[in-house]
Amino acid sequence: MNTNDLDTLKHGLRDFADTRDWNQFHSPKNLCMALSVEVAEIAEHFQWLTEEQSKNLGQDKLGEVATELADSLLYLLRLADKLDIDLFEAAVNKIELNKQKYPVEKSRGNAKKYTEFSR
Amino acid sequence: MNTNDLDTLKHGLRDFADTRDWNQFHSPKNLCMALSVEVAEIAEHFQWLTEEQSKNLGQDKLGEVATELADSLLYLLRLADKLDIDLFEAAVNKIELNKQKYPVEKSRGNAKKYTEFSR
Amino acid sequence: MNTNDLDTLKHGLRDFADTRDWNQFHSPKNLCMALSVEVAEIAEHFQWLTEEQSKNLGQDKLGEVATELADSLLYLLRLADKLDIDLFEAAVNKIELNKQKYPVEKSRGNAKKYTEFSR
Amino acid sequence: MNTNDLDTLKHGLRDFADTRDWNQFHSPKNLCMALSVEVAEIAEHFQWLTEEQSKNLGQDKLGEVATELADSLLYLLRLADKLDIDLFEAAVNKIELNKQKYPVEKSRGNAKKYTEFSR
Repeated sequence: MNTNDLDTLKHGLRDFADTRDWNQFHSPKNLCMALSVEVAEIAEHFQWLTEEQSKNLGQDKLGEVATELADSLLYLLRLADKLDIDLFEAAVNKIELNKQKYPVEKSRGNAKKYTEFSR
Repeated sequence: MNTNDLDTLKHGLRDFADTRDWNQFHSPKNLCMALSVEVAEIAEHFQWLTEEQSKNLGQDKLGEVATELADSLLYLLRLADKLDIDLFEAAVNKIELNKQKYPVEKSRGNAKKYTEFSR
Repeated sequence: MNTNDLDTLKHGLRDFADTRDWNQFHSPKNLCMALSVEVAEIAEHFQWLTEEQSKNLGQDKLGEVATELADSLLYLLRLADKLDIDLFEAAVNKIELNKQKYPVEKSRGNAKKYTEFSR
Repeated sequence: MNTNDLDTLKHGLRDFADTRDWNQFHSPKNLCMALSVEVAEIAEHFQWLTEEQSKNLGQDKLGEVATELADSLLYLLRLADKLDIDLFEAAVNKIELNKQKYPVEKSRGNAKKYTEFSR
């Protein structure tokens, strides 16, 4: 398996769904809903923690959170695949767009500006 | 830029936050909340569509959804980076785990089983 | 206890948090996150169902969903209380606003219009 | 209009959907998705704020948040109505259940216990 390659994961997920005949459940609408459920399972770990506490989870909790992050990535990739969207390309484009939207000199270290910018 | 490489994106995001001094806002708790907001922006496109309609969005809407998928991936990667989690490795491990959890012969094409299994 | 009175629930929740000294955890930010987690627990029941199936849950599942709906209402009320927002009044106002925003003659039974309108 | 009465809102929402012929879009699955989108619009206001900042929003932002809370309540009520669930009764029952689940003497003012308890 190649290192860090989204295509490797995408094909792994395709094969997983194909062999189980689960494509019938994987409409974009359903996958989007499943993605939101997984992301909430990440949030469940953080909801009552302070920001500082969220930076130091401890090994056990960190392992659980890693699994929820993985689930979220897998549904996100599956959703992109079903919509025939190149997720890596879309992400690269979005970083470039953000660079233009939030120029360094205007957005540097300002919470208020950040909040206004972040739409 | 390497193809499909999560590390490329991770380092792009680090650089983006560093030059804007935005690490102060990027606690795992906040990034998790931002991720859930982005995922809901995907859901906004699908909420009133039938499953069939969600498979055929049309070019304009597809472009908008691609941007929301990208935003979700970027926050997910940023969150993993801040927690020092190797997201690719976690995803590979999760696929392997799922293969054991949902053996082909038991989970094949059965909505009811799928639903019960999917916890 | 009065019937269907949001204030009754609000005061019940206040008393519950006060006697347990849990106000320290109930910042609006945290309550909002907890609300989103509860709503995702509703979504977990619906994610793989068709729309038709979601209308006929069966008694067991319906009972579980009722509990998740209740949790969501409780966090929503608690969040409104902590922000000193009159949730009932806000809801009445929003219904009135929606009546103006979606006039009957223009919005009648049209999925496309509905989708465009629903932002 | 009676004060704080969930039934008043429920009937207002029914009438609103009936006159616009929108029941066709209001499957429980869709309403649940719409609810999660509205809750994320609350979260959007809080995502980059500290807990302290989330307690002091200022009048303008507070007004916007009130509208999002209202939207969330309306979809929650509509979802309960479509499932024929008595939301007020479910909420009263859940408060009683929580009182048994989190006895005062065991749960008093302890973040760690709270976190473990809060499932």
